[in-house]
Amino acid sequence: MTLLVVGSVALDNIQTPTARRDNILGGAAVHFSFGASFFGPVQMVGVVGGDWPEEHTKLFQKYGVDTTGIEIVPDGKTFRWTGKYLENMDDRETLDVQLNVLGDFQPKLPEASRRSQFVFIGNGAPSTGLKTIEQLQGADLVVADTMNLWIEIARPDLDVLLTKIDGLVLNDSEAKMLTGERSTVTAAKKILTMGPKFVVVKKGEHGSMFVSPYEIYVVPAFPTETVIDPTGAGDSFAGGMMGYIASQGKTDGETLQLAIAYGTIVASYQVEGFGADKLEQITREDIDERLAKFRHMTSFAGR
Amino acid sequence: MTLLVVGSVALDNIQTPTARRDNILGGAAVHFSFGASFFGPVQMVGVVGGDWPEEHTKLFQKYGVDTTGIEIVPDGKTFRWTGKYLENMDDRETLDVQLNVLGDFQPKLPEASRRSQFVFIGNGAPSTGLKTIEQLQGADLVVADTMNLWIEIARPDLDVLLTKIDGLVLNDSEAKMLTGERSTVTAAKKILTMGPKFVVVKKGEHGSMFVSPYEIYVVPAFPTETVIDPTGAGDSFAGGMMGYIASQGKTDGETLQLAIAYGTIVASYQVEGFGADKLEQITREDIDERLAKFRHMTSFAGR
Repeated sequence: MTLLVVGSVALDNIQTPTARRDNILGGAAVHFSFGASFFGPVQMVGVVGGDWPEEHTKLFQKYGVDTTGIEIVPDGKTFRWTGKYLENMDDRETLDVQLNVLGDFQPKLPEASRRSQFVFIGNGAPSTGLKTIEQLQGADLVVADTMNLWIEIARPDLDVLLTKIDGLVLNDSEAKMLTGERSTVTAAKKILTMGPKFVVVKKGEHGSMFVSPYEIYVVPAFPTETVIDPTGAGDSFAGGMMGYIASQGKTDGETLQLAIAYGTIVASYQVEGFGADKLEQITREDIDERLAKFRHMTSFAGR
Repeated sequence: MTLLVVGSVALDNIQTPTARRDNILGGAAVHFSFGASFFGPVQMVGVVGGDWPEEHTKLFQKYGVDTTGIEIVPDGKTFRWTGKYLENMDDRETLDVQLNVLGDFQPKLPEASRRSQFVFIGNGAPSTGLKTIEQLQGADLVVADTMNLWIEIARPDLDVLLTKIDGLVLNDSEAKMLTGERSTVTAAKKILTMGPKFVVVKKGEHGSMFVSPYEIYVVPAFPTETVIDPTGAGDSFAGGMMGYIASQGKTDGETLQLAIAYGTIVASYQVEGFGADKLEQITREDIDERLAKFRHMTSFAGR
């Protein structure tokens, strides 16, 4: 089944307490695509500038990511993000943001991408999500991510977007901010009244929670000791989740629950290297092997 | 199999953002005992003052808690704790502590309790734990809790205690403080080098993690919306865990993993009322029913 992601493509500068990397491949659509690529092909729609290194495009292609929808603005510059992780490797500071070509991003879906069955709208201006949805023809499942910035500065657009998507993926603190609720479960349930059929709340090192009118699933994080760079963990989580769903072509509860476990495992690898380094080194077999370990770690009795 | 708990028995004053209760039954041994009582009899060793209401002792007996080991100091006063939960219901401030008779507590195990097979040493001065262990004869499993206070002021005793117990139960932040590590998994593994055969790290609303040289289990919290009073959640968790282990008379990995799930469910009820209110209202059937729901919420595929 066809999987489409629309979102940011970036060049990141990342500092952690022990290391620093400049000019590395980043952005929501990028991390999503790498995460999803283990499960099948991905079509990526985004925008980059004339400074975009051709080798990155080749890397995408190597991983089965269709880059037809990546628009290159020759006289523009690629979106750049500079961030610094604090001692706990969880909190981070954004040191610099240069939106560049992303500032005027108008997603133009290639003809083939418009009929995608599974669609993920990466974190970005809600208006971009709305413009994406306008171009879709009969998608089976549309899932979007969002963040505190859009809750603060683009609430009206976000409220409309929420009525047009099937699933919302967001952080715990964002779910609470969006709803004014203090409990994660209560916040997620309130979001269901705003439009989405399900909500996936990401809690970083504490795992995630899926809430629909019919089911609640709770999934801990895979207990990794090696956290090199948390950047893109949430996007690769969504990539693993949507990649698995698209590979199955189904959206029933059991499929979604396993999809979230796959997302968890992909994200656990993602944080083990800078940028997309680690995902470039592993295979689907590695993911399935760790998933089996994870099942053992989380299955009490009757296993 | 026989289960013994040694620890504090208290009268608590508790404030939450929406309510206040004074003079309610509290303390580590108390919440542990209620949690364990669903799985079989419990022997409680602790100390109270002349102000101790006789009705509390009767309540224990109603729940199958053997109070033979509760020493009453007629001219002393019961340990009193006054605490206030902040808006998030997770952080709390201790407003007042009156150690009273707990300050001089020298655990005296009744003859029958000395041969207990399963023993839990509730959070308290490590010296109390050591004095308890001296009196034991051939226990199968000794598990202790501890807290930041003892890590700070009684480290030498705590280090000795760690070499004499089978399992340690403590909070995430305490595991990190005890080891100087930043990762929960790394901290737990380091604690294994200090003596215990396994460590259970409690993460409050984010669940718990079990680490032994052979296994890691990760267990999310049960996603409850009703948090009335978090006091005693960790102790009732330990009670459910140890109660189930004692009821099975086994300490293999599968038993411990299910025991942690039972502890999780008991704690999820504990927070739904002030003090021990909620645990007084439920039955083992309620626990098993919620456990079945929890298994469904956490079992991806092959369920």
